[in-house]
Amino acid sequence: MDSRFHALAELCVNATAVQPGQVLAIGAYTGQEELARAVADVAYAAGALYVDVLYFDPFVKRSRITHADPSTLDFVPSWLPARLEALAERGDARVGFAGIVAPNALAGLDPALSGRDQLPWLKEASRVVSERLTNWNIVPCPHPEWAKVVFPDIPADAAYEKLWEQLWHILRLDEPDPAAAWAARSDQLKASAAALNERRFDALHFKDDGTDLTVGLLPSGTFGGGAFTNVNGIVHLPNVPTEEVFTSPDPERTEGFVTSTKPLVFRDGTIVEGLKVRFEGGRAVDITADVNGEGLRSKTELDEGAARLGEVAIVDGQGRIGPLGTVFYDTLLDENAASHIALGGGFSFAADDQADRDRINKSGIHIDFMIGSPEMEIDGITKNGERVPVLRSGAWQL
Amino acid sequence: MDSRFHALAELCVNATAVQPGQVLAIGAYTGQEELARAVADVAYAAGALYVDVLYFDPFVKRSRITHADPSTLDFVPSWLPARLEALAERGDARVGFAGIVAPNALAGLDPALSGRDQLPWLKEASRVVSERLTNWNIVPCPHPEWAKVVFPDIPADAAYEKLWEQLWHILRLDEPDPAAAWAARSDQLKASAAALNERRFDALHFKDDGTDLTVGLLPSGTFGGGAFTNVNGIVHLPNVPTEEVFTSPDPERTEGFVTSTKPLVFRDGTIVEGLKVRFEGGRAVDITADVNGEGLRSKTELDEGAARLGEVAIVDGQGRIGPLGTVFYDTLLDENAASHIALGGGFSFAADDQADRDRINKSGIHIDFMIGSPEMEIDGITKNGERVPVLRSGAWQL
Repeated sequence: MDSRFHALAELCVNATAVQPGQVLAIGAYTGQEELARAVADVAYAAGALYVDVLYFDPFVKRSRITHADPSTLDFVPSWLPARLEALAERGDARVGFAGIVAPNALAGLDPALSGRDQLPWLKEASRVVSERLTNWNIVPCPHPEWAKVVFPDIPADAAYEKLWEQLWHILRLDEPDPAAAWAARSDQLKASAAALNERRFDALHFKDDGTDLTVGLLPSGTFGGGAFTNVNGIVHLPNVPTEEVFTSPDPERTEGFVTSTKPLVFRDGTIVEGLKVRFEGGRAVDITADVNGEGLRSKTELDEGAARLGEVAIVDGQGRIGPLGTVFYDTLLDENAASHIALGGGFSFAADDQADRDRINKSGIHIDFMIGSPEMEIDGITKNGERVPVLRSGAWQL
Repeated sequence: MDSRFHALAELCVNATAVQPGQVLAIGAYTGQEELARAVADVAYAAGALYVDVLYFDPFVKRSRITHADPSTLDFVPSWLPARLEALAERGDARVGFAGIVAPNALAGLDPALSGRDQLPWLKEASRVVSERLTNWNIVPCPHPEWAKVVFPDIPADAAYEKLWEQLWHILRLDEPDPAAAWAARSDQLKASAAALNERRFDALHFKDDGTDLTVGLLPSGTFGGGAFTNVNGIVHLPNVPTEEVFTSPDPERTEGFVTSTKPLVFRDGTIVEGLKVRFEGGRAVDITADVNGEGLRSKTELDEGAARLGEVAIVDGQGRIGPLGTVFYDTLLDENAASHIALGGGFSFAADDQADRDRINKSGIHIDFMIGSPEMEIDGITKNGERVPVLRSGAWQL
């Protein structure tokens, strides 16, 4: 076993805050066995009652999209949501792995068909996250196939080592105490969120060459970042890395247009490049892309909320991902390199008043895509129409 | 992909009789991905609604046995039996793979502890099988680690090829139409079972150098073999290969002693060698072994029925496994090389009268072990005490 997986597993179990007696559910892809086994081992040593690893196989999904009756592609067997609901009811822990394991698993298939099969994503996950029923964490899992996608111009072995090196730095595993380093970064993000919350902006305005977007905020909406506290009082770090301060906006007041600044990669491996989206009255009314635009369009047709925003997030220049200049083709990493928005379900905890909470967008999907750039200017707009600089050249202005 | 897996998958899906619209649940181990993907592909092409592959990871199990509180080792998360019950209720299809993937996964652990964790086996499976609620099939899955165990004296590559060659022959994949060959063998087994049923023996007597065992039969007990018909009228071949004629005996009338003639291998990789069991009044009252006897003893303490017989099976000399002389360290293959008995739950369909069905042994375990040899003599004993030769030198005498 590569001992680096053990170090990553220690960080993951610490970030998840696995408690003695909890079940730990691990959502992994075939090809991520080394990390799954390391996380399981660390979690059992920390007192986990049971570690339930679910390996999702993208090649089996390929056979489904290829052969199955298209009208059945949204079928989900009852035991998959039942498992998630049982974990939520028990107040258990969950871990998921990001990263690519099979970049070509769905190559050549009709993206409109692939888009109908959302697995391993479950729509019930939105509620479990929003209501903070579990303590959870997502970390990237290095894989040789992923490395080839990120560094296609160097030999495969070197690419895999380079991916490990960059992730090692991004994950702060090169710090003497990685868990302490993440606690410090979490505190910084919380301070930025608090400064934003104090201003009670009516909207945020994002502007650079390809983007001119105004995102209306809810009156009692709150920004958050870093560690979460779940309903059972367990403090956990949902994403490692995390470099974002985010909220769920008013789903009816987004206006303007955006150009994605990083490729959007679905968990099934489909990559959407050159994405442009225009919003009117909160709805994405025009979605185009240079590659695989239909894959995103089909997802936004899944339900009423799928074409509205569930999240808006600001990423400052202090994270370790942006400066590397690497495109990882993976949302967890790329979204933490740049400010972003997400189509689909929002977070019901992202507003103080119940009336606002009820207005937060609902959907079975949640798809982040990056709109930020080093040059992006972000302003807050007050109820009186005053503009207040929020971010300039990656630095907080509040 | 090795095209031999595709041929094996075609045979497996044919034996399972996957119907259009059925969910197919595949129970595999990590390391068996190639066959799982091939079976999924063939099943989707045959009209399966959804193929649900559950990859069980024996290395995660090792961490559990190593670190978890021993008193929790019988914990089973609710969604695993819920999945099986849902499959049964829907009348779906199930496939499992035999064979070894990680012979040393549990090496060095206390077998008494390993024995408490029965997963991936679920006690609910006994009822699902007995009540014939699903159509199912188990086939062996070739794996390099398995080949090393079976052929330790030749290079690993050659061992893997030799395993494939022997399985190819055993699975009748060298026949022009393997499915037709299995249909013909199934008919032979059914004819032998019918001849046994016509005699209505009161008991069977097994005798060779290491065994002298009398197994009492139920008055309306019935022998079966080959293809099954499930409650929904789907004809399927549960085991490929299958060379046995079997029934569930009277759980209170087994007397004498047996010596196993093949190693007993648990799905977790534990191998019990040189097993000797003595029965009194139907109970295994003395279990010893040269290696890992405690692993079996701890399983027989799981419940009241775990120390009584749920199955007795006769294997004739016409099968393709026995003549090879290979020990596969896998029950599916080794049990079909020789007559055998099983401790634990029986099959409620193995008797005609309800009173007898109610008497069939119940347990959360079902552990086959081989007692047959080419020299074994099997007699039927009538109610009047008359002895009738059933098997001599591997040939049916009825």
